[in-house]
Amino acid sequence: MASSNPEEARSRGADCDLLFGEPGLIREVLGALPRLIWVQATWAGVEPLLGPGARRDYLLTNARGVFGGLMSEYVFAYLLLHERRILERYQAQQEHRWDPAETGMLRGKRIGLLGVGSIGSELARTAKHFGMTVAGYTRTSETCPDVDAYFHGPSLREFASSLDYLVSLLPGTPETRHLVDASLLAALPPRAVFINVGRGSAVDEKALAEALKGRKLGGAVLDVFEQEPLPPEHVFWSTPHLLISSHTAAPSFVKDVAQLFIENYRLLLEGKPLKYQVDFERGY
Amino acid sequence: MASSNPEEARSRGADCDLLFGEPGLIREVLGALPRLIWVQATWAGVEPLLGPGARRDYLLTNARGVFGGLMSEYVFAYLLLHERRILERYQAQQEHRWDPAETGMLRGKRIGLLGVGSIGSELARTAKHFGMTVAGYTRTSETCPDVDAYFHGPSLREFASSLDYLVSLLPGTPETRHLVDASLLAALPPRAVFINVGRGSAVDEKALAEALKGRKLGGAVLDVFEQEPLPPEHVFWSTPHLLISSHTAAPSFVKDVAQLFIENYRLLLEGKPLKYQVDFERGY
Repeated sequence: MASSNPEEARSRGADCDLLFGEPGLIREVLGALPRLIWVQATWAGVEPLLGPGARRDYLLTNARGVFGGLMSEYVFAYLLLHERRILERYQAQQEHRWDPAETGMLRGKRIGLLGVGSIGSELARTAKHFGMTVAGYTRTSETCPDVDAYFHGPSLREFASSLDYLVSLLPGTPETRHLVDASLLAALPPRAVFINVGRGSAVDEKALAEALKGRKLGGAVLDVFEQEPLPPEHVFWSTPHLLISSHTAAPSFVKDVAQLFIENYRLLLEGKPLKYQVDFERGY
Repeated sequence: MASSNPEEARSRGADCDLLFGEPGLIREVLGALPRLIWVQATWAGVEPLLGPGARRDYLLTNARGVFGGLMSEYVFAYLLLHERRILERYQAQQEHRWDPAETGMLRGKRIGLLGVGSIGSELARTAKHFGMTVAGYTRTSETCPDVDAYFHGPSLREFASSLDYLVSLLPGTPETRHLVDASLLAALPPRAVFINVGRGSAVDEKALAEALKGRKLGGAVLDVFEQEPLPPEHVFWSTPHLLISSHTAAPSFVKDVAQLFIENYRLLLEGKPLKYQVDFERGY
């Protein structure tokens, strides 16, 4: 059953054993589905279905795998924008000014990935394509062949210390809350640019605004925020060296997610493990 | 001998058999070097050393191969900028406005390369990385494995008719002059974006400005122009949907070009053919 109307979903729901839809809408009907065995979320972020007291007696799978390519386009759009000084050149053009200032390049630069799952692996592959070196910070895994150096646990500041770009792909869990804080930002070289395409809660937003205002950081690109849409009074609207992309980095395209649902549905019928099952305990 | 001072070059030059430098400076001393056998240009464009009456009794090699990666960073910076609506989102940010308008993506789009040499091949490789299809328009060659479909001769408009992006990599020769004219621009779909990183003379600039003003084209990104720097009164400064990057797409980095010189110098000593020899007749 796929529906965007919670009322309709509730009334029809009693018989449902499968749900396919947005986590926020699914939360509203979750209590009224006694026969539920599987939920396929159309998004990567399933926070609405987690947290203390949330129902856990069903299989929850989220939309992963399908975002790698889109995220890669997003992240490298902004990395290249930065190297190429496109906004500065655009400003010069508005002033009818020829601007031959030399350009930078990605080749030889170092990118750090906070979290290396399916999206991180795709970013690493694109980084290698452009001749970058790749550092990965993970809990324990070291499985991506495009990561040149892995870091874990207490080596977080060491991981950060030599980066040109730091990309957070962290999910929103109690463990990742404010992992990107003043101390981590201070460990980055002042040239470094921070990009957040994970979840807003992983970043101490006040500390980031301070670092940018104090020119302790080369810049930041934020797609996600603690509160979305970003409230009108938020400090980020007037923070320098910051680009805001309003949670557009990786929309769920219907075709991709439908394909994933079909694939998982077949696995379910065959009694096999589903793809991208969410661990209620870990939260991703 | 490497020198940026033509006077000094002229006085020392009589003994020289090799020259390594900028084409414009080399032209000034070319008549005073009776023993000259080889010139390694530090740029790709060697127009100053061509043309009627130019000396041709020496080997001329230009800087190729070294620009592919940089050009790829440049072209994909602007392709991704376009898909991601970064300038529109930047404008929204200036107005403190959350802008969740959906993004485009390169995956599945079609790029056409006018000229497929070492730079075109590198662009094709990056296009395939991002899941695009690649069309190539060349004189005769069909050697790049990343080009999905080749076009030659009179099929220029057919080549153009299905493109999302058209990239000109054409050198500045009599044959390529105004190859990108009103008729070719009219053959492009109205959504298409034109990028010129070859030579300005390949484009009929008046026709391009008209096409952009009439919204016959999705946009244009120009790194090169018939006259550089672009004169203050040029129509392009006030043409809509046009981005100007002031001939910064692929600077010659000293390290890259020096390496090429060393490589060619060794080949010369061994009596082998040099890399990237310029055909005085064809002009590239």
